[in-house]
Amino acid sequence: MDRLRVAFLGPLASFSHQAASESFGNKLADLIPHLSFADAFAALQSQKADYAVIPCENSTNGSVVQTLDLLADRNDQYKDVKVCGEYYLTVHHCLLVHKGSYRSGWSGYDGSITKLYTHPQAWGQCESVLSQYFKGVERQDVSSTSKGAEIVSKHPEEKAAAIASRFAAEFHGVDVLKENIEDRADNTTRFLILRNVLAEKTARLDLEQPNAPTSAEIPAHDSTHKTLITFSIDHSSPGALAEALLIFKKHGLNLTTINTRPSLKRAWQYIFFVECGRTPSDENKDAVVKALQDLRDVTEYCRDMGTWKDQLGQSA
Amino acid sequence: MDRLRVAFLGPLASFSHQAASESFGNKLADLIPHLSFADAFAALQSQKADYAVIPCENSTNGSVVQTLDLLADRNDQYKDVKVCGEYYLTVHHCLLVHKGSYRSGWSGYDGSITKLYTHPQAWGQCESVLSQYFKGVERQDVSSTSKGAEIVSKHPEEKAAAIASRFAAEFHGVDVLKENIEDRADNTTRFLILRNVLAEKTARLDLEQPNAPTSAEIPAHDSTHKTLITFSIDHSSPGALAEALLIFKKHGLNLTTINTRPSLKRAWQYIFFVECGRTPSDENKDAVVKALQDLRDVTEYCRDMGTWKDQLGQSA
Repeated sequence: MDRLRVAFLGPLASFSHQAASESFGNKLADLIPHLSFADAFAALQSQKADYAVIPCENSTNGSVVQTLDLLADRNDQYKDVKVCGEYYLTVHHCLLVHKGSYRSGWSGYDGSITKLYTHPQAWGQCESVLSQYFKGVERQDVSSTSKGAEIVSKHPEEKAAAIASRFAAEFHGVDVLKENIEDRADNTTRFLILRNVLAEKTARLDLEQPNAPTSAEIPAHDSTHKTLITFSIDHSSPGALAEALLIFKKHGLNLTTINTRPSLKRAWQYIFFVECGRTPSDENKDAVVKALQDLRDVTEYCRDMGTWKDQLGQSA
Repeated sequence: MDRLRVAFLGPLASFSHQAASESFGNKLADLIPHLSFADAFAALQSQKADYAVIPCENSTNGSVVQTLDLLADRNDQYKDVKVCGEYYLTVHHCLLVHKGSYRSGWSGYDGSITKLYTHPQAWGQCESVLSQYFKGVERQDVSSTSKGAEIVSKHPEEKAAAIASRFAAEFHGVDVLKENIEDRADNTTRFLILRNVLAEKTARLDLEQPNAPTSAEIPAHDSTHKTLITFSIDHSSPGALAEALLIFKKHGLNLTTINTRPSLKRAWQYIFFVECGRTPSDENKDAVVKALQDLRDVTEYCRDMGTWKDQLGQSA
């Protein structure tokens, strides 16, 4: 079998790289970094990639609007791109140091680190540990958490540490001095796995998340499959949005998330992103097809963006 | 009557300042700049301000998530803050120059400007004029469009121009060399006007937008009043979201926008922001009260965030 080509947002050892690596871990796959989300979408549409792994939502920060805007596909650039899976990655930050520089580990740490590297966002996610142990220590912003790990790996002469993932530590060959230094234990990013529906070899791939988040703070879902449908409505028609949303209920599809973005065709008109769940059964096997038929009557346009296996709380 | 105190996001001559100035233009009001949205909310809650004028949505960029997060009020810090109005401000950029430096105006412009100042976002909004007339001209980012106008006002020795609003030009006393240089004529920001419901003097103010956007690209609304309701649902209960949204329809409230933000209580649980419209009539005068009663049965919490006069497309 051909090796799969999986696009992700670079640099190497980024959280997107980790999500791509873990979700395709047991497959023969080449993971290919891309400079932007748009590049990854373009690679997929032109079949330079078979899959793309793209962050769509973070449990703390909310939706990733760049991803929604690409899924909206306002100029029909990515018409063969659909969602075929999802992957939940819990964001764990570690304190990384040059290999062998602190052999006695965190318990023997002597307070000698004088410089810290990480991405600007990560400082705020590790405030508790930083304020307790690294008050007044010089902080240097870098373009990615992975970049910080790389710098630490190359500069043994600095008494420096980086805040990055264990995945970045392994990739760059540095030591984990202290792990899970993030303030919120449940900070999780959901990635969508996208495929080009014309690429034959992506048709039969079964994507399963081996260790999905099933902890107590995540509620159980009643659904085992999710579908994403995008649509816009004629905003001057009162009740049209309620009618569109009713259609999901009518066909037994449970609304799980709703997002909106400006249509950019008319001011104050929106593209809606509705995710709905169901447990497949004989009765509802045509539910998505029927819902789409009904939606066409009340929307300006609507589009089936794919169905995939719900990876959240399945064993909860 | 006391002068009204109106909070906005600074600096002086910002688009927020302009929105505050125009929406309270015919009232005796002191407009008070604040350093952040949170500062403006806090001033309102503590009654240091009577009103706040806060951007909530842009027709091109979508919702302002910081504003949604403050309206979500997860820690009950702003319990007396409600929406009492809205204001639509069309974003027009102008090319501003030091007073008297180009007396013959744009028609006589000789191509001698060697430096441009503006906020990083504005470059991308004026690409057409910039690429046609200012190719290769040095660009200097500044913290606000107003700041660029201020610099131009203070440095006659520079052959410089700023991209900012006519409002900023008048505030800083500089000339408008060319107006409406923005690529999109319909780039509009919607501001919410907030009040403290305990402040007696804010109870009877009638806010009207004198020249609301009513152009062809904006669809006519059927409603003359809007209400914002926030709620969260028990995500493990299938169909709960659809049921909540049905309640609006049942009471004749037309859904106009839906936004979501993470609840931050449990991962993948959301706070919903639903705006609904109606034309007040004898039949529906209790519609909002009744909808809230029904919503309490199917939501974890819900909150009435205020009712105000729809300023969009009223005369369309």
